[in-house]
Amino acid sequence: MTTIGEGPPRGFPEVEFAQRLDRAQAYMHDVHMDVMLLTTEENIRYLSGFGTQFFQSPTRPWFLAVPKSGKPVAVIPTIGAVAMSKTWIEDIRTWSSPHPTDDGISLLAQTIAEMGSRIGLPMGREAVLRMPLNDFARLRQRLDGAEFIDASPIIQALRLVKSELEIEKIAHACASVGNAFDAAPKLFSVGQGDVEAFRRFKIECLNQGVDDVSYLVGGAGAGGYGDIISPPSGRKIQTGDVLILDTGCTYDGYFCDFDRNFAFGTASDQVRQAYDTVYRATEAGLAAARPGATCADLYHAMHGVMTAEGDVGRLGHGLGLQLTEGPSNTPWDETELRPGMVMTLEPGMAFGDGKVMVHEENIVIRDGAPELLSRRADPELPVLG
Amino acid sequence: MTTIGEGPPRGFPEVEFAQRLDRAQAYMHDVHMDVMLLTTEENIRYLSGFGTQFFQSPTRPWFLAVPKSGKPVAVIPTIGAVAMSKTWIEDIRTWSSPHPTDDGISLLAQTIAEMGSRIGLPMGREAVLRMPLNDFARLRQRLDGAEFIDASPIIQALRLVKSELEIEKIAHACASVGNAFDAAPKLFSVGQGDVEAFRRFKIECLNQGVDDVSYLVGGAGAGGYGDIISPPSGRKIQTGDVLILDTGCTYDGYFCDFDRNFAFGTASDQVRQAYDTVYRATEAGLAAARPGATCADLYHAMHGVMTAEGDVGRLGHGLGLQLTEGPSNTPWDETELRPGMVMTLEPGMAFGDGKVMVHEENIVIRDGAPELLSRRADPELPVLG
Repeated sequence: MTTIGEGPPRGFPEVEFAQRLDRAQAYMHDVHMDVMLLTTEENIRYLSGFGTQFFQSPTRPWFLAVPKSGKPVAVIPTIGAVAMSKTWIEDIRTWSSPHPTDDGISLLAQTIAEMGSRIGLPMGREAVLRMPLNDFARLRQRLDGAEFIDASPIIQALRLVKSELEIEKIAHACASVGNAFDAAPKLFSVGQGDVEAFRRFKIECLNQGVDDVSYLVGGAGAGGYGDIISPPSGRKIQTGDVLILDTGCTYDGYFCDFDRNFAFGTASDQVRQAYDTVYRATEAGLAAARPGATCADLYHAMHGVMTAEGDVGRLGHGLGLQLTEGPSNTPWDETELRPGMVMTLEPGMAFGDGKVMVHEENIVIRDGAPELLSRRADPELPVLG
Repeated sequence: MTTIGEGPPRGFPEVEFAQRLDRAQAYMHDVHMDVMLLTTEENIRYLSGFGTQFFQSPTRPWFLAVPKSGKPVAVIPTIGAVAMSKTWIEDIRTWSSPHPTDDGISLLAQTIAEMGSRIGLPMGREAVLRMPLNDFARLRQRLDGAEFIDASPIIQALRLVKSELEIEKIAHACASVGNAFDAAPKLFSVGQGDVEAFRRFKIECLNQGVDDVSYLVGGAGAGGYGDIISPPSGRKIQTGDVLILDTGCTYDGYFCDFDRNFAFGTASDQVRQAYDTVYRATEAGLAAARPGATCADLYHAMHGVMTAEGDVGRLGHGLGLQLTEGPSNTPWDETELRPGMVMTLEPGMAFGDGKVMVHEENIVIRDGAPELLSRRADPELPVLG
């Protein structure tokens, strides 16, 4: 059992974090923000390099306070001190967590107070506050007179355009998963339970070099499938089924997010036609994905090809440290495409009796034509076995 | 490649959800709560049975509104309607998400307003609000005059004691991971990179029957390891190393969470002694884990055996739909143990030069002695190769 495709180097040189911080502080300066408080895995990681699956435990809060100038300060549970000391962060303040009455709040309030009173906190689209609301109320009380403003526009602007080192990691995840999809004929077969099909695909992705199969949804149904967000149902794959697998795998914290469809034994004209339509919608998206075009342009380019849209709310999105990031390919998102943005093109269309055909590719916007990070899907629905 | 150990049936009979809801509504009645608003994956899943990895996408909020009487109402993005319709929930209200100006807030406000004005929201330990703060402010504005109270005590009480069907799922995850740890001699070897060691272990867990390896941390170091929350560092395993792997794998949404330590070639007296001490601390925990004892009692029983505690904040915790749940084995958590509670015993101790020895087992509290869900670790540090 050998691992194919060793990935690019892990982590980033310190200069990458310095550049991110410079950009963050320039944005903060523009809106007179004294300190930006980050509480979530991906935002803390983006500015510190601190990567741990420990965020899956909801017990302990983690804080990164970004001042107007100088490096961010980490205010974290003692259990994370060793891991944080391996990053470029120098000022690491810890408390013993969980704590019966003060889970880092007094230490955080003191740290913030040193930095100023106009505090940015991501409050908008895609943002959550990863700390108990009761503790947030306590923090506000301790920071009496402080003003809280929305830092989401800064976070979105910061993470929108990826560096080449970030793109390399996403590209590796995409290539590994592409190899796993190429192995479909040996992984999937009629009579196989969908739980087993999912398991074999996850193992193949790991063997191909991703770190984690964080996200795998889909399933199989006769002539197509209608539920694109569920785990496997326990059903056995049958002749005439179409299997859709949509996966977000990670490498060094960065996600790919694309899907593939497979028919078994035979495929109806109806499903072949749906596949073809959505394939052409993706082609239209690829043709429209140019610097200066907007996400709304991408939406309209893809939507124009399709005959009956299912309501998935959007036809693709940003991609990076999270499975989905802004912007969204919707009629109302006027974000301009810029070189270095990593996006999914994800046209989806209802067809037949409650079925959905969804295609997805991952691209990076370049000067001129976009670069495909996922190897392009087959132009025709692959039929296995 | 065959899967060993097919797991117990997936999902729950409807009566299990009805019982959970009855208990929730009894608690709500006690504190005059009109409606309980749930926003996170595990709480929504607990009362609805809605299971999807789609929560990894931060873009769309999901809401479950639990009224004083009658079934919960789902207020969710259209993309989840098919999946939610497979659960016992009947009243499913959807909107097209993401939305430019109103991401479900008016629909949610209307739904809540039908149910009353005293609104419970988990605000305490382990709770986060999974929606943008800006949207929460909009919701409060629309529900002018409503009172928000902390629903965390209700959530904690609800999920504290597991049903036998829940325990079966955790037991299956534990048994599968136990089999994977038993395969250590064929998985790990001197000269192997830790990234590869992690990958092989993840694959073995999947082959043994878990759905996902959601969490795997640890690493190897000469004579012991000091950073128990990081991903692999890229280091090659050497003779004299001790490898610790701590994993949370899931089956049908339920976690196991335990670790194992392995030495390579040789083990120093110091690390053998640390292993022995922490092993005996676990034994003391097992002896103390009786109905009526408290989590503080568990802490003291384990802590009393150890000579120098590293500050990990606690020596174990609850386990279920999340990798860590309340209560915590700390000197200050006076939660009484009751039959059906699933807990980890996780004594950890600093030793040598910045190293940590951590053991972890998963148990269910029973009348009399607890039942081990994880097969007990070897009484002596296993030496591989």
